[in-house]
Amino acid sequence: MRVDLNCDMGESFGAWRMGNDAAILDHVSSANIACGFHAGDPGTMRATVQAAVAKGVAIGAHPSFPDLQGFGRRPMTLRPEEVYDLCVYQIGALAAFARAAGGRLHHVKAHGALSNMAARESALAEALTQAARDVDPGLISYAQAGTELVRAAERIGLPFASEVFADRSYQDDGQLTPRSRPGAMIERVEVGIAQVLRMVREGKVRSVNGADVPVRADTVCVHGDQPHALEFVRRLREQLAREGISVAAC
Amino acid sequence: MRVDLNCDMGESFGAWRMGNDAAILDHVSSANIACGFHAGDPGTMRATVQAAVAKGVAIGAHPSFPDLQGFGRRPMTLRPEEVYDLCVYQIGALAAFARAAGGRLHHVKAHGALSNMAARESALAEALTQAARDVDPGLISYAQAGTELVRAAERIGLPFASEVFADRSYQDDGQLTPRSRPGAMIERVEVGIAQVLRMVREGKVRSVNGADVPVRADTVCVHGDQPHALEFVRRLREQLAREGISVAAC
Amino acid sequence: MRVDLNCDMGESFGAWRMGNDAAILDHVSSANIACGFHAGDPGTMRATVQAAVAKGVAIGAHPSFPDLQGFGRRPMTLRPEEVYDLCVYQIGALAAFARAAGGRLHHVKAHGALSNMAARESALAEALTQAARDVDPGLISYAQAGTELVRAAERIGLPFASEVFADRSYQDDGQLTPRSRPGAMIERVEVGIAQVLRMVREGKVRSVNGADVPVRADTVCVHGDQPHALEFVRRLREQLAREGISVAAC
Amino acid sequence: MRVDLNCDMGESFGAWRMGNDAAILDHVSSANIACGFHAGDPGTMRATVQAAVAKGVAIGAHPSFPDLQGFGRRPMTLRPEEVYDLCVYQIGALAAFARAAGGRLHHVKAHGALSNMAARESALAEALTQAARDVDPGLISYAQAGTELVRAAERIGLPFASEVFADRSYQDDGQLTPRSRPGAMIERVEVGIAQVLRMVREGKVRSVNGADVPVRADTVCVHGDQPHALEFVRRLREQLAREGISVAAC
Repeated sequence: MRVDLNCDMGESFGAWRMGNDAAILDHVSSANIACGFHAGDPGTMRATVQAAVAKGVAIGAHPSFPDLQGFGRRPMTLRPEEVYDLCVYQIGALAAFARAAGGRLHHVKAHGALSNMAARESALAEALTQAARDVDPGLISYAQAGTELVRAAERIGLPFASEVFADRSYQDDGQLTPRSRPGAMIERVEVGIAQVLRMVREGKVRSVNGADVPVRADTVCVHGDQPHALEFVRRLREQLAREGISVAAC
Repeated sequence: MRVDLNCDMGESFGAWRMGNDAAILDHVSSANIACGFHAGDPGTMRATVQAAVAKGVAIGAHPSFPDLQGFGRRPMTLRPEEVYDLCVYQIGALAAFARAAGGRLHHVKAHGALSNMAARESALAEALTQAARDVDPGLISYAQAGTELVRAAERIGLPFASEVFADRSYQDDGQLTPRSRPGAMIERVEVGIAQVLRMVREGKVRSVNGADVPVRADTVCVHGDQPHALEFVRRLREQLAREGISVAAC
Repeated sequence: MRVDLNCDMGESFGAWRMGNDAAILDHVSSANIACGFHAGDPGTMRATVQAAVAKGVAIGAHPSFPDLQGFGRRPMTLRPEEVYDLCVYQIGALAAFARAAGGRLHHVKAHGALSNMAARESALAEALTQAARDVDPGLISYAQAGTELVRAAERIGLPFASEVFADRSYQDDGQLTPRSRPGAMIERVEVGIAQVLRMVREGKVRSVNGADVPVRADTVCVHGDQPHALEFVRRLREQLAREGISVAAC
Repeated sequence: MRVDLNCDMGESFGAWRMGNDAAILDHVSSANIACGFHAGDPGTMRATVQAAVAKGVAIGAHPSFPDLQGFGRRPMTLRPEEVYDLCVYQIGALAAFARAAGGRLHHVKAHGALSNMAARESALAEALTQAARDVDPGLISYAQAGTELVRAAERIGLPFASEVFADRSYQDDGQLTPRSRPGAMIERVEVGIAQVLRMVREGKVRSVNGADVPVRADTVCVHGDQPHALEFVRRLREQLAREGISVAAC
């Protein structure tokens, strides 16, 4: 039994620092690395990729809407072709740093508003997934469980990893509770870890309404920029080890 | 006997059009395609790459300093590592569009101020050439004849094509006459064509001082945005055909 | 009796040209000048403002979402505070060029997706209008007739000019027919001119359903980048002159 | 007797934080606020200006080359007209936030590579100074003592404040020792404070060669992003108070 732990990284830009990448890299198996559109100038991309290669962490492209000021979190209405184009661009740029560092690009995971919108809108999910496949059919799409991103990967025939969260609650349909609703966030570390363990071992999650809902947990999203991020990921790994679940990239 | 004709392309951006790519593509063997830093948004890159693939024209990355407003023509003082990073980024982005279009990236030719500075400064020339090699050692560096770009390719061991100009005069040392000096530009089409023919057949060019200077002419730079660009390239091809010189990518 | 003719201008960027500003400036009374976010680098802004001052055309700021690649036409979901901030920024930048040219900023008219969204969403309309007022309470808001932009100007107490179109049809509620519907565009020049004349003289427009709808026509939007823009504006001015309606900024 | 203490501020961008503005604002009399080209998105500009107004700190525009990734520290070769244009733009944008906050723009101080180059090149110094004057002839140019910026202000007739440094040593010609030379930086706080006191009281500085050099010290540049910035500025103010020198904007 095994699971992947993925974390967003390389989100500094120029003179501005963000995150705690060096420390987090010791604990995760996959890094989603910013590609310059919401964060991550070329120098940051090179350094982050090199660090991931050095630590044997799988390298993922983390493409975004073009919105440095908004950190890629502001919804933009783009045509699917525009999303395809900007994903090819960003995936290609990161893949080049991976090759230059003696590694290879392993997966693609969309960032911020692009990710949220593609999870709901099939045309955007397809554009993103098709871009990944057209750049390299060996890439894996990190697709939020139960969303259009999963269905797009299935239709297009790109391998995907079903992604779950430790710090978010789920609804009866297997989707995340929107942040605007009460109970969306799981604050207590123990509860989050227990949710992950059950998803990995049993393929189920207890919904906010108390129902047992099937969920496929190939990879767990870990947040690197939260105050207790490092503590959380350490404890999660300890608990996974105790349960005999290995941590490895998909 | 053969020679390559290369032309800068894909230099539109968003709603703004530039150049006459569709017509020029019928006459050249290599396209240097803007990568988003001086021109060429992702949609323009995709469309330009697709057109080049459709017409069998070799695809090159045309990286630049990050300067949309200045069209990459304004000198910037960057460290060689910064030049390396921004070249890996841009080359990778364009390579991805080439793969997505069913083609492959063939060469790299620097744009504008980056090209001019790398021609003179060995550290920049090495950074640019090393970036190309680290992304794909099968790439060819289009290097202005007699400059640091040629020497960097030789040192690093990357294949290169020695590039010459039809509309620029040469000095006794085999380098271009600076634009600031009289006689730098060759205005008459016949003179330019004759210069190219002699460079290709004899490996020589008559300098502004009347000396015969050795020059290696693997590829000729054709300007697409000049008023008579199309006429010039048509006449050059006719003349090359008449002389039994075929036109093909390096 | 008089009316203002306004036109978007200064929409070149760096090496890329757009529009036919010099010719159009001879025929309009107000110029809405791009402020760098969708078009209009600082050099273009300076030159456009200087030309408007030289021809006695009133200078307006034409702020946009930050989206050069999309020419400000792509909807972005920004908070009203963000819209306020980017409008203050752009209005201030253009006002400085007006002062430097010995003129003064006269009005503000939002561009593209920002304009369309602010016409419908009162919070965005207020943010935009408040930004104009906070920079200079003497500015005039060019507000599409019958929209939230008019209501925001009334609430905030900023002078406004009610803007109408010659080439768009109107619905029974006095709003533009969406472009997606048949009959949205008025193709025939005579019909467009007649619509303007009636709006100016009678304050009425015949809706797509044949109803007479009241509309206040302080300023008419003229498009500069259409193929027949120049011909249209010339004929419109001739007809206005024939009817004794003078053309002057609000 | 009095002196101004100025500090660069508002150098966050989007999601990225930089500096310790709130604390530093309690101790300085002038804030040089980033204008979006090297740092400082519109929201950061608004918030920083509002904080300065609230604390009675004089507001300055801090224009830069357009280089977010390089934080405005990378030399760019721009024509003087281009420098003029980008300074008008940035000064205007910041002036608008000052007005919107109920304050007014007080001074202009160039940032980073633009400042260093304008200090040495008279055409750039004139472009920058002329831009400030054309936007508002009441502005004060913060000009590094003994440089082309001072001479440009004198020629153009714009009021200026001669700026000195506490943490940099001076040469016999009254200019800063280049950072590349030994002894350029003054590490010890006591030495730096003593240098400032002598410059303010006596108009002299002891050069690296031991000569007494005349220097006019209207304003002292304080660095906000150094580890001990806050401690330094506190101690400097204490010492100034002890010597009966008041701290106030120029």
